[in-house]
Amino acid sequence: MQIGALKLKLQLVCGDSFALGPGKADLLEAIDREGSIAGAGRVLGMSYRRAWLLVDEMNRCFTARLVETLPGGGKARGARLSDLGRDVLAAYRELEAAAAALAETPGHARLAAALRVAPLPAAQHD
Amino acid sequence: MQIGALKLKLQLVCGDSFALGPGKADLLEAIDREGSIAGAGRVLGMSYRRAWLLVDEMNRCFTARLVETLPGGGKARGARLSDLGRDVLAAYRELEAAAAALAETPGHARLAAALRVAPLPAAQHD
Repeated sequence: MQIGALKLKLQLVCGDSFALGPGKADLLEAIDREGSIAGAGRVLGMSYRRAWLLVDEMNRCFTARLVETLPGGGKARGARLSDLGRDVLAAYRELEAAAAALAETPGHARLAAALRVAPLPAAQHD
Repeated sequence: MQIGALKLKLQLVCGDSFALGPGKADLLEAIDREGSIAGAGRVLGMSYRRAWLLVDEMNRCFTARLVETLPGGGKARGARLSDLGRDVLAAYRELEAAAAALAETPGHARLAAALRVAPLPAAQHD
């Protein structure tokens, strides 16, 4: 997430795994819209295998599955968010909205005022 | 920066460059303490060249240098934070402190409540 010159990344960790972050949140949203893991991967430009692995990692990090797969075979079968999946996605977006308010803090204003629009060209190493 | 299960990364961009982030803030702090770029790199486990390049990138992104090098030759010469460097570092730490308050939001509480302490073991791909 970027607001002006401020780039913010919010991730939730679970042991050594990443439970949720910007990419997984977008994937949940795409699954909700597309109705399948394969379809969600397609609109996000990722392979079915990659999308499936991200979903599996999320599902293993929470107290219940965030994504439920529907009966059928392989890639063709549908998927949808569970109630917990829907709530977790909404809570993550709330957290992002709260984070966006950091751009309104005096600390950020001082940083933004001191930043150039573009860097000076690189100097030679001395 | 990590607070419980929440990992937060705050970066300031300047064009295609990274003006400031957690690594560069730690480097500024180390230069202030050690009095040289070489000494700061040493305590942070990075090469002189790497530390120098990060300092150069920061200096080029702000309206004035954050780090001033003192007369002398090569690695041996000292370095110190400029007034702007000191202010930028303090403002970044303020922004981090404000970000830490995100862990107190209802959105984060809902996410934390739904997270396992450790992920379930990975399943076989089906």
